[in-house]
Amino acid sequence: MSERQRAEYAQVTRLGSGGPWEDIVGYSRVVRAGNLAFTAGCTSTVDGQVTCVGDPYGQALQAYRIALDALARAGATTADVVRTRAYLRDAAHFDDAGRAHKELFGEVRPASTMLVVAGFVHPDMLVEVEVEAYLP
Amino acid sequence: MSERQRAEYAQVTRLGSGGPWEDIVGYSRVVRAGNLAFTAGCTSTVDGQVTCVGDPYGQALQAYRIALDALARAGATTADVVRTRAYLRDAAHFDDAGRAHKELFGEVRPASTMLVVAGFVHPDMLVEVEVEAYLP
Amino acid sequence: MSERQRAEYAQVTRLGSGGPWEDIVGYSRVVRAGNLAFTAGCTSTVDGQVTCVGDPYGQALQAYRIALDALARAGATTADVVRTRAYLRDAAHFDDAGRAHKELFGEVRPASTMLVVAGFVHPDMLVEVEVEAYLP
Repeated sequence: MSERQRAEYAQVTRLGSGGPWEDIVGYSRVVRAGNLAFTAGCTSTVDGQVTCVGDPYGQALQAYRIALDALARAGATTADVVRTRAYLRDAAHFDDAGRAHKELFGEVRPASTMLVVAGFVHPDMLVEVEVEAYLP
Repeated sequence: MSERQRAEYAQVTRLGSGGPWEDIVGYSRVVRAGNLAFTAGCTSTVDGQVTCVGDPYGQALQAYRIALDALARAGATTADVVRTRAYLRDAAHFDDAGRAHKELFGEVRPASTMLVVAGFVHPDMLVEVEVEAYLP
Repeated sequence: MSERQRAEYAQVTRLGSGGPWEDIVGYSRVVRAGNLAFTAGCTSTVDGQVTCVGDPYGQALQAYRIALDALARAGATTADVVRTRAYLRDAAHFDDAGRAHKELFGEVRPASTMLVVAGFVHPDMLVEVEVEAYLP
């Protein structure tokens, strides 16, 4: 990096959460850049193990909480959330993922997208989410 | 929410469009945060009914128009659009969705992504779009 | 466009890369809006031909490089990258795409998402990426 690049790089906050994939792939759990803070794709994974296996509601709740915990370390609360995305494995899980979203974000009302995709990094994962916050 | 959270929350504009899913899942159709305005995932759905059934071109046009209407209420015009994403059900619909995009955004030229995904919340939906605008 | 719209439009930088799809669909390879710069979905396509056919690692590397070249023309270096997304055709390619990401972004550590989707605009494409940068 040049001097200028190093200076710019230092103005962005990048935080990991210690998960093994972060080192292997080279990414941060959450980044804060100016007024924006946004998470990596988060799944219901704790200590490297997928939790709530077979339970899309539980996985959605856990994945959003992991995202919110990461945002909190970057200075953003749930009230600051302005966008969410939920990627699901199965269209039958829309209601479950929507219920988890309502519980956590029903008052905050971010712009949201829910999609069914073809898969995630581990076959037990049913839900992956991204959460973005804006800090005025 | 704390006092600070409430104050920050008030600096972001969140607008619904009255669709039934917005209440059930707890999201906004469009959010304006600082210079950015961005929509939820929008489909060709009017009064809770999927329109243009079987017509990917018509669905793409309608979905983009719903997104643009929402952005307009947040103060952004088509000329302000800087990013679009189109999620399709079928790779055979790329030309149709691309033609709709060209008609609406051919002069504006946002950064765009088109992907085929595995499904949407309703089986008649063929296209879902997200549109983001920047207001200097 | 109105006078105001024209003035706002001029404050955003939109750059193409000469690819044929950009004209057909009406999009830019990269857009800079304020402190943000972000690419269209980029694949391993050179002069209209998919390269590295059958090689997900090579395709990921090439797609990211096309995105980084576009960002460079918008004034952003690799050190400015704050978010990446990789869409794959096959869950078996996670390791390959992750290795390419690590090589290019291992020091920079953007927030990242990797997903398996159902398809891209051409059947030989195995990887599509988006890259976003923040310029303080």
